[in-house]
Amino acid sequence: MIKVGVVGGTGYTGVELLRLLASHPQVEVAAITSRAEAGVKVADHFPSLRGRFDIAFTDPAAAPLAKCDCVFFATPNGVAMGQARALLDAGARIVDFSADFRIKDRAVWEKWYKVAHAAPELLAEAVYGLPEVNRERIRAARLVANPGCYATAVQLALLPLVESDFVDHRHLIADAKSGVSGAGRKAEMDLLFAEASDNFKAYAVAGHRHHPEIMESLASLEKASGRSIGLTFVPHLVPMVRGILATVYARITKEADFQALFEKRYAKEPFVDVLPPGSQPETRWVRGTNQCRIAIHRPLGGDTLVVLAVEDNLVKGAAGQAVQNMNLMFGFPESQGLEHIAVVP
Amino acid sequence: MIKVGVVGGTGYTGVELLRLLASHPQVEVAAITSRAEAGVKVADHFPSLRGRFDIAFTDPAAAPLAKCDCVFFATPNGVAMGQARALLDAGARIVDFSADFRIKDRAVWEKWYKVAHAAPELLAEAVYGLPEVNRERIRAARLVANPGCYATAVQLALLPLVESDFVDHRHLIADAKSGVSGAGRKAEMDLLFAEASDNFKAYAVAGHRHHPEIMESLASLEKASGRSIGLTFVPHLVPMVRGILATVYARITKEADFQALFEKRYAKEPFVDVLPPGSQPETRWVRGTNQCRIAIHRPLGGDTLVVLAVEDNLVKGAAGQAVQNMNLMFGFPESQGLEHIAVVP
Amino acid sequence: MIKVGVVGGTGYTGVELLRLLASHPQVEVAAITSRAEAGVKVADHFPSLRGRFDIAFTDPAAAPLAKCDCVFFATPNGVAMGQARALLDAGARIVDFSADFRIKDRAVWEKWYKVAHAAPELLAEAVYGLPEVNRERIRAARLVANPGCYATAVQLALLPLVESDFVDHRHLIADAKSGVSGAGRKAEMDLLFAEASDNFKAYAVAGHRHHPEIMESLASLEKASGRSIGLTFVPHLVPMVRGILATVYARITKEADFQALFEKRYAKEPFVDVLPPGSQPETRWVRGTNQCRIAIHRPLGGDTLVVLAVEDNLVKGAAGQAVQNMNLMFGFPESQGLEHIAVVP
Amino acid sequence: MIKVGVVGGTGYTGVELLRLLASHPQVEVAAITSRAEAGVKVADHFPSLRGRFDIAFTDPAAAPLAKCDCVFFATPNGVAMGQARALLDAGARIVDFSADFRIKDRAVWEKWYKVAHAAPELLAEAVYGLPEVNRERIRAARLVANPGCYATAVQLALLPLVESDFVDHRHLIADAKSGVSGAGRKAEMDLLFAEASDNFKAYAVAGHRHHPEIMESLASLEKASGRSIGLTFVPHLVPMVRGILATVYARITKEADFQALFEKRYAKEPFVDVLPPGSQPETRWVRGTNQCRIAIHRPLGGDTLVVLAVEDNLVKGAAGQAVQNMNLMFGFPESQGLEHIAVVP
Repeated sequence: MIKVGVVGGTGYTGVELLRLLASHPQVEVAAITSRAEAGVKVADHFPSLRGRFDIAFTDPAAAPLAKCDCVFFATPNGVAMGQARALLDAGARIVDFSADFRIKDRAVWEKWYKVAHAAPELLAEAVYGLPEVNRERIRAARLVANPGCYATAVQLALLPLVESDFVDHRHLIADAKSGVSGAGRKAEMDLLFAEASDNFKAYAVAGHRHHPEIMESLASLEKASGRSIGLTFVPHLVPMVRGILATVYARITKEADFQALFEKRYAKEPFVDVLPPGSQPETRWVRGTNQCRIAIHRPLGGDTLVVLAVEDNLVKGAAGQAVQNMNLMFGFPESQGLEHIAVVP
Repeated sequence: MIKVGVVGGTGYTGVELLRLLASHPQVEVAAITSRAEAGVKVADHFPSLRGRFDIAFTDPAAAPLAKCDCVFFATPNGVAMGQARALLDAGARIVDFSADFRIKDRAVWEKWYKVAHAAPELLAEAVYGLPEVNRERIRAARLVANPGCYATAVQLALLPLVESDFVDHRHLIADAKSGVSGAGRKAEMDLLFAEASDNFKAYAVAGHRHHPEIMESLASLEKASGRSIGLTFVPHLVPMVRGILATVYARITKEADFQALFEKRYAKEPFVDVLPPGSQPETRWVRGTNQCRIAIHRPLGGDTLVVLAVEDNLVKGAAGQAVQNMNLMFGFPESQGLEHIAVVP
Repeated sequence: MIKVGVVGGTGYTGVELLRLLASHPQVEVAAITSRAEAGVKVADHFPSLRGRFDIAFTDPAAAPLAKCDCVFFATPNGVAMGQARALLDAGARIVDFSADFRIKDRAVWEKWYKVAHAAPELLAEAVYGLPEVNRERIRAARLVANPGCYATAVQLALLPLVESDFVDHRHLIADAKSGVSGAGRKAEMDLLFAEASDNFKAYAVAGHRHHPEIMESLASLEKASGRSIGLTFVPHLVPMVRGILATVYARITKEADFQALFEKRYAKEPFVDVLPPGSQPETRWVRGTNQCRIAIHRPLGGDTLVVLAVEDNLVKGAAGQAVQNMNLMFGFPESQGLEHIAVVP
Repeated sequence: MIKVGVVGGTGYTGVELLRLLASHPQVEVAAITSRAEAGVKVADHFPSLRGRFDIAFTDPAAAPLAKCDCVFFATPNGVAMGQARALLDAGARIVDFSADFRIKDRAVWEKWYKVAHAAPELLAEAVYGLPEVNRERIRAARLVANPGCYATAVQLALLPLVESDFVDHRHLIADAKSGVSGAGRKAEMDLLFAEASDNFKAYAVAGHRHHPEIMESLASLEKASGRSIGLTFVPHLVPMVRGILATVYARITKEADFQALFEKRYAKEPFVDVLPPGSQPETRWVRGTNQCRIAIHRPLGGDTLVVLAVEDNLVKGAAGQAVQNMNLMFGFPESQGLEHIAVVP
């Protein structure tokens, strides 16, 4: 049993994390912080948690985070990098949901996030928390940068292709579609029901922050082989609450059994499920779960490979992957507390 | 550990029941029947269940239902009444999701369901499966008629009022709103996305089948006190997948502390949660859970009481209540396998 | 051809008004104001209007409103009452979408809107813009208070009942359901897609601002007959963009042909459509139109009358009714520019 | 004024066509056929049309279609090809919404539609009704094959690229997303609200019938230049009623001013609107209108061009384009009856 702190418990990834932690057998949630809601019972703020959490939100300044074994930052970008050093020094281990430690190249990070990094000395130590790539390093990590939701789905769809040499790596395309919760719980006009419902659009077409994150992560794989990667990534907003579908296109340059390639790559992964040939995964198949389900297609037998990957952006794309990382960091079974079945319909 | 059979596993209440049973520690699902899908792996039909169920659907005729301890009928009206006798004789106990055994008055039943009842001799024995009313009788029952989804929410909103004498019992109004899954998984025009989405309507205004069910159940309470009940019940179709909100109106005839009345009535109920004064429950607060959450209001201090009750129509309104009944029938802890937290957002 | 000004053109009622005015043959839109968007082309802000409006938003202070024949205030409460006097003095006539002039009783208004009224001297002159009640007074009015969206639907459902003596006037119930656009285009948490979608709730159960508006308007009818009215009004939020359904319940105290009562009352109304017996109106039947469609039911032949009324909250509930009022004020055909057919599906 | 017949008036494209024709100043709708609804008033079946159509559906066999100047087939595939010859002989002109006459290569058509073509002798005469390509031929046509909804959006996004030589024509990708109404008004399980809502998926990944239609149409352009085209087309189902967004990807092989290329190509098109640089079109911007709005992007300045095209699948993708074609065929102004503004929000 470990003591856990949650910084920023009022957003969507925060409440999802609390849902998961509430039934995790090895976790005691010792503190949930919120500046705005300090003093308010967590279960009053989120009535879905009535009967599960007795504690109130505490002000971040007053919270006993330093005494926690594991601290989750379910905060906007910029918060974790200000507090990480002190918590690490106090002996806590950290899983950060934000982008603060996802990109090792400080110049790239500062270009995309438009502020100076507050803890550049921790960038080298931070481990990018994609277990399918960095499992062993996560086990040993003190500071894990939980990947972005798009970044998780797109990378899981691309990994077997980028690690091998059967498609044109320089012209990969990821056409991704996300439910609205991916944008977080912010009172912004674009996210209003009356704006987003019965509507569909692309956004951030000029460039999305998950692009450099994906590029750096894939590049670290590539270095070994010397190949270079080109990726066009266009996100779209779907009028649904949760879920991401990434449709990835790659031009085949050498014949291969792509179904087998993916099945072999993910054979031992507890949370990546390669579907039978012909499958067309739906986001609801993974709603509320930590699964990423993947299908491989070759339309009309042509030379373009199509990979479809679905995940729940709040679970495998955020809180679930964070718990998976915590399980690895503390030696718990990797799937513990993550065995939910999708709520369908 | 008991052996369980599920008759009609391809509808919405069926797949929800499988979700719940998959993690129930005392249940082994021995057979899931479907005439249309016989031979198909359950997890191929419902990919959300991949990794949880290895068995295929079996044809009802070939299924080893008679060897099961408990058989659930997640079937349309008319199926259970044809098979119940044989299964009971074989020693199985039954929870029927359909309306076949919900109404004891055969003439009333036949008027509303427009067919002759196939097992009228079982009507007296069948127990109406609303634990908040019939808990002890359910424990001993061989045949439980699981209540309708609207009937559950409306009765839980009305019970404390009907059991006491503070409101006009003859002019109760239940304005109920349900998500579309309540109509079942049927390829009907009215239930199409392009018909039901971005739209709202009342339906069955002339009279809905849950009306006589509610009336008979409440009347059984009333007999004791000799009062008679009048209820206007109007259902509405909400463009959402799951959830029921019942807004109940009652004219106050005698002053009382209605908040206290409800809190006392449900103090020991594991699945009825009386919310603090001023609460305005949302259907998502109970999505995927067996909870019914209730709030009591008195707008502008007038003489009309407003009771708001939310439930998930597929859980407390169907599969969850069925598992609750099974727990009672087999002496398991009443909440076992029903401790899910709502998926929010 | 008249010159029209629109104050506050960036909200939902504003853009809907522009859609209607764009094809009104007797209107030239001379100015559309917005403080925040001053200088921005209207068609850049609302690309749906590309090719229809060449002008840019102007700052309210600089806009030539005083030279307009008719000024619409599509603004939050509190704006119109500050500017009305000057515009009237300049010779403009006003249709105010906000609540500023809807309630004649200043004390009641100030209690509900929690500010001092800025132009109490205009309250007596202002005409409540429900043409089905005040048509002749609207024709002569300089200042029209356009009714609230709920208030329109509920009153149209109640008028024939309140003007006659067949139901219990003291215990009327209006259970109303609205799409999310009714709350306006405001960046508020409750209105986010991820909060409102796949969800349903009641709100403002303790008391909604349209309640006193309805009460005063109905009371003005009542004075003639000396009856007093009691109304319980509970609004609900439907996960759809547009549309209101009001379900009204009234206890019948004297027999009558209610279908005929409604048909006769609205026989000459261009925008109230009494449906054939048995109809169950859907909000999409009036989407984008100025129609209110009404059906009358008597469930199971009991003593409770159920009236169902649907409207588009942004048209008959706001911008369309405003244009209808303008047509009356300027002697145009009442239906001019309001002949749209609902977009179905 | 011409006499118009509508065959198959009960589907989504049918009711949309009736909405458009109701306000077309040069059209009298003489007959609307439906086998299933013969004798039923059109306005009873579609209450949104109350007050606009007095006629009832007639049985196709009894309808005076041969006396019409123009007959629209808003029917499933296979109907028009059986009746076209007789109507043409009687002097009527035809706009067929179905796929019967879209593909000139009979073998290709029969492979994809899996039946023998009933009127192969008309294939050569039929004109593919995309005005942006075939305007002059449509003016003279007796038989117009109205394009598919996806085919329209995808071709309008591709035309300037395929007609020029700046991108790799052999590896074009069209990732298309459609609202559910695109599948028609059919009682099929996949189209249920509870299946399609709060969900997202790709479908027909192995090959969609609009693929050969697009390929043949583009190839006819290509013949002139001798280039060959390769297109990967993956459709997706969006939980919204109407709207298509096509995201098209093309690898740039020669530098060009793509914004100018598109603007020039569509400068005189009344229903193709090339948006300013940086625009991210939303499907609601064209809801209920005959517009296709297009934006051109080059993410991160790379060598992949991204074209975004939105249309309303029921208007520019079906009924609106059909009216546009009728206008051309009968010498009416091309935009007549098609000047609706999008209903936003």
